[in-house]
Amino acid sequence: MKTYLECISCFFKQALEAGRMAGADDKTQKKILDEVARAIPDIKLSSTPPEMGKTIHDIVKKITGQKDPYKALKEKATEQTLEIYPELRKQVDSSDDKLLMAVELAIAGNIIDYGTKNSLNVEKELNKILQKEQRVIEKEKESIFDFKSFKNALSDAKSILYIGDNVGETVFDSILLEQIKKIDKHKKIVYAVREKPIINDALKEDAIEAGIDNFAEIISSGSEVPGTIIPLCSKSFVDIFKKSDMVISKGQGNYETLSEEKRATFFLFMAKCPVIANHAYCEVGDFILLCNYPSSYEKN
Amino acid sequence: MKTYLECISCFFKQALEAGRMAGADDKTQKKILDEVARAIPDIKLSSTPPEMGKTIHDIVKKITGQKDPYKALKEKATEQTLEIYPELRKQVDSSDDKLLMAVELAIAGNIIDYGTKNSLNVEKELNKILQKEQRVIEKEKESIFDFKSFKNALSDAKSILYIGDNVGETVFDSILLEQIKKIDKHKKIVYAVREKPIINDALKEDAIEAGIDNFAEIISSGSEVPGTIIPLCSKSFVDIFKKSDMVISKGQGNYETLSEEKRATFFLFMAKCPVIANHAYCEVGDFILLCNYPSSYEKN
Repeated sequence: MKTYLECISCFFKQALEAGRMAGADDKTQKKILDEVARAIPDIKLSSTPPEMGKTIHDIVKKITGQKDPYKALKEKATEQTLEIYPELRKQVDSSDDKLLMAVELAIAGNIIDYGTKNSLNVEKELNKILQKEQRVIEKEKESIFDFKSFKNALSDAKSILYIGDNVGETVFDSILLEQIKKIDKHKKIVYAVREKPIINDALKEDAIEAGIDNFAEIISSGSEVPGTIIPLCSKSFVDIFKKSDMVISKGQGNYETLSEEKRATFFLFMAKCPVIANHAYCEVGDFILLCNYPSSYEKN
Repeated sequence: MKTYLECISCFFKQALEAGRMAGADDKTQKKILDEVARAIPDIKLSSTPPEMGKTIHDIVKKITGQKDPYKALKEKATEQTLEIYPELRKQVDSSDDKLLMAVELAIAGNIIDYGTKNSLNVEKELNKILQKEQRVIEKEKESIFDFKSFKNALSDAKSILYIGDNVGETVFDSILLEQIKKIDKHKKIVYAVREKPIINDALKEDAIEAGIDNFAEIISSGSEVPGTIIPLCSKSFVDIFKKSDMVISKGQGNYETLSEEKRATFFLFMAKCPVIANHAYCEVGDFILLCNYPSSYEKN
C-alpha cells in the first residue's frame, strides 16, 4: 500500500508519542518533529507507510539516544496479556467454533498497537475485548471476513508462515496457533518477528515469553521496519514466505507492506485509521480477515 | 495560548484540506505539505496556533493561486443557515430564558468551522443542533459556562464589541445580537470581522448577508489570521477593544489569540480539539462561555 497524503499528519503524531515514550523533554520533542519535517519533502508516496515509520523511529532513537523507547511498555503488555490468558483460553474452550473464536481473539489482540493508536490504555482495551458484546465480529461481512477461505486453506496447508506484529498480541496469536495445531499436530508453523526494536513490534524474546515456541519455530524476518518489506527481508525468510503452503499476516503494518505482493496471504487485523479502512473497503474498527488471492482457496 | 507540539500534526491536516478545497491535484497537495514541513522548524511555540494557521493558508494560496479557497463553501454555509434561521428564532421565542437560548445557539453555531473540524458536513451538524437533545449545554458546569457573569456584564454594558468567527455562525450571532438589543435598544454594538479571506472566517459581506447590520456596526479588525492578534490589528479596532464596556469573542481561534490579553473578555465557543480542551479545563465538544477576568463582573 502506498503512502497517502493523510499519513503525513499521522507521522508527526507518531513521532511525538515516540519522543515522549523515550523520555524526551519539550525542547527535544520539538527537535524530533523538526527533523521529521525535514524528511517530509523526500518521502516517496509510492513507498509504504512503514518505511517512513522506520525513518521516524530512527530519528527518535538518534536524537534521544534510546534504542528501544517502547521497552517498558512492551514488558507490561506481555505481562498484562499473560494475566488474561486463562480467560481467553476459557472463551475458546467454551465456544461452539473454537477455531473461529481463536481467529476473532487473534484479531482483537491487534488492538495493542502503539504505532497507530496513540496513548493506548492496554488494560482498558483488553477488558473491552473480554466483554463479548464489545467485540464487533463481522461474520456476515464476507468480503472483509473470509473465514471460509481461511478454513479451507488451513485444512490443506502442511507448512504455515505466521507473521507476527505487536508484543502482547503475541499471546493472542499463541491461542490461534494452538487451535491450528489441534487440526493436525504435524503442521509445520514458522512464526516470524522483527529483527530489531521498532515501536512495540514483537522480537524473538517477546514471542518466546508469549509461549509461541510451544507451537511454532520462531524466526526473524530480517525486517527493521514496522511491517514486512520483502526486498528488505532476509533471504531465508523470503524463501519461507515463497514456499509455505499458507501465509498468515497479522496487523496493519504487515498488511500495508504485503498486500500487493504476488502470493496468497491471509491478513488478520483491526482497521485502525481511515486511510487503511478506505484501502480495505471497510470501516475503522472493523475486524478484518481477508486474502489477497481468495480464489486460490475456493472449494465447494 | 501558545502552540502545543500536538498542533503540528493538525497543521498538516489543515493544509491538506485547504489544498483540496482549492482544487489542487495530488502532486500540488504534496507540494503544499512539503512547504508546510519546511516552515515547521521556524515555528515559535510561544506564538499562537492561528499565526501558523496564516502561514499554512498563505502557502496554499501561493501554490494554488486561489485567493479564497473556501469561497463556495462560505456561500453555502450562509445559505444553509439562513434557511434554518426561522426555526432558530422559533426556538428562542418559545424558550423560558430567551437570552440563554440565544447564547446556547450562538455557541452551537461555532460548529461551522473548517479550520479545526475536517470534512465538516454542515447540513448534518446543523440538523443535530436543532435537535434539542443533541445539544449538551453545560449549565451546571459554572466554571466553563458562566452565564451569570455574562448576564451581569450585559446588563451594565453600554458599548459592546462582538468579535465574529466563521461564516454561517454569523447567522447564529445575529440571533444573540437581537436578544441583546431587546435588553436595551440603545446599547451600541460593534461586530468585528477579518480583514482578508482566511479559511471560512467571516468578512464584512458575510456579516451583512447574515443580517448582522440590523443590530450592530460591522467593522474589520484588520486581522488576516484566523484569530485576533492585537499587535497585528488595526489601531481603530484596538481602540474599540480597549474602550468597550464588554467584549464578546466567538470561536476557538479568537480564544487562542485573546485569552491572555489583559482585558476582561467573554469567550463563547465549542471546544473542538484535545489541546484546547486541556487549556480550558473542559472536554472536547463542551459548550464554553467563560470570562478571563470573571471577578470584573461579580455581583450579589
